[in-house]
Amino acid sequence: MVGNVMVGQSGGPTAVINSSLVGVYQTAKDRGAHKVYGMLHGIQGLLEGKYIDLDEHIRSELDIELLKRTPSAYLGSCKYKLPEIGENDEIYNRIFETLYRLGIRCFFYIGGNNSMDTLRKLSDYGQMIGANISFIGVPKTIDNNLIGTDHTPGFGSAAKCVASIMKEIIRDVTVYDLPSVAVVEIMGGNAGWLAGAAALSKGEDCEGPDLIYLPEFPVEPEDFLRRVGELQKKKKSVVVAISEGIKLPDGRYVAELADSMAFTDDFGNRTLTGAARYLCKLVAERYHCKTRAIEFNTLQRCASHIVSRVDITEAFQVGGAAVKAAFEGDQTGKMVTLKRLSQEPYQCATDLIDIHEVANAEKFVPIEWYDNDIKYVLPEFLSYVRPLIQAELSPIMVGGLPRHLYYTDRLKKR
Amino acid sequence: MVGNVMVGQSGGPTAVINSSLVGVYQTAKDRGAHKVYGMLHGIQGLLEGKYIDLDEHIRSELDIELLKRTPSAYLGSCKYKLPEIGENDEIYNRIFETLYRLGIRCFFYIGGNNSMDTLRKLSDYGQMIGANISFIGVPKTIDNNLIGTDHTPGFGSAAKCVASIMKEIIRDVTVYDLPSVAVVEIMGGNAGWLAGAAALSKGEDCEGPDLIYLPEFPVEPEDFLRRVGELQKKKKSVVVAISEGIKLPDGRYVAELADSMAFTDDFGNRTLTGAARYLCKLVAERYHCKTRAIEFNTLQRCASHIVSRVDITEAFQVGGAAVKAAFEGDQTGKMVTLKRLSQEPYQCATDLIDIHEVANAEKFVPIEWYDNDIKYVLPEFLSYVRPLIQAELSPIMVGGLPRHLYYTDRLKKR
Repeated sequence: MVGNVMVGQSGGPTAVINSSLVGVYQTAKDRGAHKVYGMLHGIQGLLEGKYIDLDEHIRSELDIELLKRTPSAYLGSCKYKLPEIGENDEIYNRIFETLYRLGIRCFFYIGGNNSMDTLRKLSDYGQMIGANISFIGVPKTIDNNLIGTDHTPGFGSAAKCVASIMKEIIRDVTVYDLPSVAVVEIMGGNAGWLAGAAALSKGEDCEGPDLIYLPEFPVEPEDFLRRVGELQKKKKSVVVAISEGIKLPDGRYVAELADSMAFTDDFGNRTLTGAARYLCKLVAERYHCKTRAIEFNTLQRCASHIVSRVDITEAFQVGGAAVKAAFEGDQTGKMVTLKRLSQEPYQCATDLIDIHEVANAEKFVPIEWYDNDIKYVLPEFLSYVRPLIQAELSPIMVGGLPRHLYYTDRLKKR
Repeated sequence: MVGNVMVGQSGGPTAVINSSLVGVYQTAKDRGAHKVYGMLHGIQGLLEGKYIDLDEHIRSELDIELLKRTPSAYLGSCKYKLPEIGENDEIYNRIFETLYRLGIRCFFYIGGNNSMDTLRKLSDYGQMIGANISFIGVPKTIDNNLIGTDHTPGFGSAAKCVASIMKEIIRDVTVYDLPSVAVVEIMGGNAGWLAGAAALSKGEDCEGPDLIYLPEFPVEPEDFLRRVGELQKKKKSVVVAISEGIKLPDGRYVAELADSMAFTDDFGNRTLTGAARYLCKLVAERYHCKTRAIEFNTLQRCASHIVSRVDITEAFQVGGAAVKAAFEGDQTGKMVTLKRLSQEPYQCATDLIDIHEVANAEKFVPIEWYDNDIKYVLPEFLSYVRPLIQAELSPIMVGGLPRHLYYTDRLKKR
């Protein structure tokens, strides 16, 4: 099943989501697709009739290379929740009318678990009405919280960014000979994968963070303060890595205790910032020492200038594998997964999973990969993550800055 | 005057301050210095008898390359204010006794305006007591606020980091098709040099920030809100770059209105964070749209993985020039400066300035380089900064992460 192709990007950006777009685009063209359309701002844009012919925008091999190195979603993104099937036929009608009109036979959606919820509904609806369209999901999220896949494209580069910056920041915040506590806040929602990756900074040339707190294991403020106090007896500069989503024993987010304003999207996901600031406040009140709250913020998910080569290659591969599954196998309602074939040497291949198993589910750091007594990830965790941050893809530097491919007419209606 | 050498690092870290250390060390060794000692944590450590023989720690050409790529001060830093001459003879006696005992003929201090205050006092005291020691300052600060020099080493790399990350963050925060305002907070104390460098992100492949606020020009909150509102009529995602040190018309820091805890050092310098969060709060209250406060925080001054080659080369040169001035010219009480010989092509050479002209003074962005009507830096500003961010120095990647030279025994007494 070849025909025309529709591809979209959805959910939070990553540094390599455009590499998956390239994987879909290039593989589809190589395998004979006539048109490859890109929906602007995901399904939300498609509903408003916003899409582009990618051939008009990716015009050279250099464009391909720039696109791979461009962070965030080239096509724009959305956090739009489709109604359940049966709740609003008009919306589904509108989508499928557009797909029919454009001769779409394959529909690819690059995103995380919320985006896979969208894909599940579209696939189910398509099967219900007998639409001859393949719906395939392409995994993406820095949070690494998708189930059914060894890991998700986007995670490796975010982990490499977190560990690299962590090394630099540890050098910075330990420079003075005075008592200080730095709390570094790392993304990841309710999953501690990315915060755990801060431990990769520890090695021959770096002390690493002293404590790592993950959302999977509640933090008790008094216990936290006691540990910081103990550490300060041995060393002046204490560095703590925390996940933005760490929770109190009563289930509340630590971030709720800060003054931050939460933004909640259609899926109920919240912007969680402030936990580091709150913990620093506690430390300053108790120990009257210098504190610094450092939020890695959006940078950790868009640092294309320091991506993992392994990650960006796999991001391309999952895009390409999605096309292959749709074109060759007439598959639908599947998400491409990554399967670790070998740990030493690291080898990974793509596979497929039923989308119903993935949508809205979440994968957490296994309890046996974290030592809650010393608040640190265990070697098993590091062995899992380390292959994913290996090797680099040099940015293309122009005038001293990394060059991107910039979609300048994102809102143009066709 | 050769003899033995003492070198120290002081003040806030930069990504290239160790390149200046290498410049001092290597030039001194090349020119016949017997011993090159490094004081640990600057003058504060020297007072406590903490110093090392650099030969024992820099043991190979690879170490030199790693040290150049290591952020923050290898020797540790301090923010220690020497008493005025005459206020406390015991402190000066202790310092000069140590220098005499070690046969120090040349004393180099790498730092910003507060550190040059230290150097000024030592040089004056040395001349007063007829100590045969050259005291030479080596400029360093990401804030670019030292007078008497075209620019300061450390600024170019920080500017390159700010502009690079700005490009990536603009791609990230504009990804959704919904009204949003991001306020990006950039370092610089009371000088807007680094915040202004955010404008370098604007170009063929990036919109750049919409507004740039510098501490030199007061921000009126109601006017800020009006501008954001106007912009949102034309575009959904608004990005504002601000300096951490922006002030209200009444002279108060905007950061004071946030809940941040200020840390004040011995020189009265404050940690200024929170202005972005405060402005986001104002925007959310007025326009009820998504907001995101992004603090670049310490990262911008320690991002060794994306340094400017021009900057790191000049950082080495000012270190080397300091040694030359002391060894050849018996100079004392001077700071090395950078003098722009030509703008097109960019050429820069070192010179010297009397330390009394530099210490505790501050250079601000000229009023004629900023358009206060549109809240943006002018082309003159960009022409000044652009040469300083050019070209790269590849990090040495080991296991997927940038490698550093780590001083592991910083507190060892000798």
